[in-house]
Amino acid sequence: MQQLKQQVFEANMALPHYGLVTFTWGNVSAVDRERGVIVIKPSGVAYEHMTADDMVTVDLRGEVVDGRYKPSSDTATHLALYRRYPQIGGVVHTHSTHATAWAQAGLAIPALGTTHADYFSGDILCTRPLSVEEVEGDYELNTGNVIIETLGETNPMHIPGIVVYQHGPFAWGKDAGDAVHNAVVMEEVAHMAWIARNINPQLKRIDRCLLNKHFLRKHGPAAYYGQC
Amino acid sequence: MQQLKQQVFEANMALPHYGLVTFTWGNVSAVDRERGVIVIKPSGVAYEHMTADDMVTVDLRGEVVDGRYKPSSDTATHLALYRRYPQIGGVVHTHSTHATAWAQAGLAIPALGTTHADYFSGDILCTRPLSVEEVEGDYELNTGNVIIETLGETNPMHIPGIVVYQHGPFAWGKDAGDAVHNAVVMEEVAHMAWIARNINPQLKRIDRCLLNKHFLRKHGPAAYYGQC
Amino acid sequence: MQQLKQQVFEANMALPHYGLVTFTWGNVSAVDRERGVIVIKPSGVAYEHMTADDMVTVDLRGEVVDGRYKPSSDTATHLALYRRYPQIGGVVHTHSTHATAWAQAGLAIPALGTTHADYFSGDILCTRPLSVEEVEGDYELNTGNVIIETLGETNPMHIPGIVVYQHGPFAWGKDAGDAVHNAVVMEEVAHMAWIARNINPQLKRIDRCLLNKHFLRKHGPAAYYGQC
Amino acid sequence: MQQLKQQVFEANMALPHYGLVTFTWGNVSAVDRERGVIVIKPSGVAYEHMTADDMVTVDLRGEVVDGRYKPSSDTATHLALYRRYPQIGGVVHTHSTHATAWAQAGLAIPALGTTHADYFSGDILCTRPLSVEEVEGDYELNTGNVIIETLGETNPMHIPGIVVYQHGPFAWGKDAGDAVHNAVVMEEVAHMAWIARNINPQLKRIDRCLLNKHFLRKHGPAAYYGQC
Repeated sequence: MQQLKQQVFEANMALPHYGLVTFTWGNVSAVDRERGVIVIKPSGVAYEHMTADDMVTVDLRGEVVDGRYKPSSDTATHLALYRRYPQIGGVVHTHSTHATAWAQAGLAIPALGTTHADYFSGDILCTRPLSVEEVEGDYELNTGNVIIETLGETNPMHIPGIVVYQHGPFAWGKDAGDAVHNAVVMEEVAHMAWIARNINPQLKRIDRCLLNKHFLRKHGPAAYYGQC
Repeated sequence: MQQLKQQVFEANMALPHYGLVTFTWGNVSAVDRERGVIVIKPSGVAYEHMTADDMVTVDLRGEVVDGRYKPSSDTATHLALYRRYPQIGGVVHTHSTHATAWAQAGLAIPALGTTHADYFSGDILCTRPLSVEEVEGDYELNTGNVIIETLGETNPMHIPGIVVYQHGPFAWGKDAGDAVHNAVVMEEVAHMAWIARNINPQLKRIDRCLLNKHFLRKHGPAAYYGQC
Repeated sequence: MQQLKQQVFEANMALPHYGLVTFTWGNVSAVDRERGVIVIKPSGVAYEHMTADDMVTVDLRGEVVDGRYKPSSDTATHLALYRRYPQIGGVVHTHSTHATAWAQAGLAIPALGTTHADYFSGDILCTRPLSVEEVEGDYELNTGNVIIETLGETNPMHIPGIVVYQHGPFAWGKDAGDAVHNAVVMEEVAHMAWIARNINPQLKRIDRCLLNKHFLRKHGPAAYYGQC
Repeated sequence: MQQLKQQVFEANMALPHYGLVTFTWGNVSAVDRERGVIVIKPSGVAYEHMTADDMVTVDLRGEVVDGRYKPSSDTATHLALYRRYPQIGGVVHTHSTHATAWAQAGLAIPALGTTHADYFSGDILCTRPLSVEEVEGDYELNTGNVIIETLGETNPMHIPGIVVYQHGPFAWGKDAGDAVHNAVVMEEVAHMAWIARNINPQLKRIDRCLLNKHFLRKHGPAAYYGQC
């Protein structure tokens, strides 16, 4: 568990490093499937004072099993994703500027180029609004549920992120570091997509064959990018 | 008083740290309600040479009671806010890029998402133009008065900031550090709101129930964010 | 002269510090009116290797009187300004991003707020295009001449900068450091003006009385900003 | 060869320094014309762990002749350019934000000012879309071919860069460092051109005589910029 705490701690510290969070806005978790627990950032603790030992361990039903602090207020959203998708090893939530702007605009981040296609095999979707009942009820759980509803039949490892309407981005990956990596990419493609549409409102989505080419040269059995 | 000077000094130094000010543009103050004085940044002194001892102490009528420098030229604006709102412990003024752009545009920063709602329970208002008489008269005091007029019945701790028309943002909080915190958030939501409206000019304000949910999970008696 | 070289060197080094230049794009000079010479950055020398001794001394007709390097290719523009305006003590040219964008747009940077009014008592003008003869003739001198033509009856210390059409900003001041200070402000107000107009294309110029109030509280006989 | 590896290594490390790449997105190469080989960044290796010895040597047909890693997945694109243009000594590919936005917009980066003209003697072109056959066939080679097709009769040293449709920028130069230099300029002029067009959609391209003046005062036999 100490190793997982260290990984989750380092992944959380990567958020300010990559300019994705201001103050305490953001949280990363990772799961230990064998033990049935996740490790997650404590709620509202400043990054500059945080240590690996401050990470909180929570079981998959949401009970704290270890840690001196309360877990992130978004814990129930993370847990919903871990329960639904056995492939997911890490989850991250931020309020990064450009991805959040798309969430506020209520629009999917369109797949416009190979930067996007290298990591996401299609548009990064935007959820529907939550109903009053969903907000006033078990809000964080319902946020997880609307993410799952929006993804539908999508393989979450093929589009490892989403923007929650009027809220902000969630991303995930095979572990905590990979989730943060995808969150950095999402912020960058959100930035580029804004400018590209501003330059040319009539621009087209990336050609499907070019999108597949880039996604599959980095992912899947025939990948040839990197040292694999 | 030495402690308050240190707090105000540190809050002033946080302005360049968070990228909110260029040169000497910006000032933070805090109040000692028992003694009836505020501590504020001196006027036009460069951040790189400033020390805690350079802070100036002024009583609530505006008389300097301690300090080798003249107080900030905006002191009368700060004092107006302290006199009107007993809840306020710290005030900050900056010319941060995006909040100032909204002030120049003459528009309230609309509440578009949860980043905004976590700190501000509604739009961040923009004041009306000052009249020629108000500008040519006691200008800095009148700036404070138009802020108070614009807030009207609003609880200033629920919307702890405003943009002054064709001028820039003022923010406040329970102490100097909290005021700066709110100024950082205002700049960030001003940035996001610009981009979001640019992406989708037809976007909607955040749902009222979602706004309340976020504001109240961080503030008020039922707050559950952080370690409270 | 060593002191002036040091000042000009430090003012040049401030350009990358404030993010106004990439590579060697930019140059600062200062004048010694008694000796009738200016000190200016050498042409095309990288900032990271530059020392105060690399600065070049040139008389007001453009003859190099001291220095191992060729002076900046824009020297003739600087000299035209020094010869025409005895008030000017320092001149700077950059290709800073937002001011250059206004130059490319061919528009004056409009006075939209107090940030602008604190330093510039009106719009920052944009020159007319140079004619083919002016470009193919003594180009750098003609650049200086079109700046002078555009300023017309304007007191250059009241609007201490300009954007040259399809080229970029020039700024000046009472010495080299003051000129750079004004160049930093010009870049910042160019940035804000772009965003403000984007948020509200119908926005108005700053009220004349508010502009005068801010300009005059920092400049002129009744100034009360700072420790003067 | 050790010297060329060092140059290519340093040029690759300059990419994150200038803010042109995130993670491992980007690659620089240089050619040794006498030996008929290029040195290029390995594929998918993180910048923070990379050393000069990790660079890969590949002959002009694409066979690895030295190196413990696989070469960049874009190697075939680099090679196509080296084979076609004997003047080119270094090639770089990035996903820098603004140049990539123009690539996604499918538009040439228009020559709007002297910043552009100092390095590029005309618009920075955008390639046509690749056909399905070109994407599904020898994709990286075909990317090189469409760059060559788009340049047509253009002297590649006069317009040392291009944006590949829905992909991103490639730049080149007389060596690896010069190629990176041109990539930095391309990102900056892409940034400025976006803002300038946003400020004034009716703006005009730079006057041809002004463009020539600036390009030729830095390049060609009559150059007088710098210490040449």
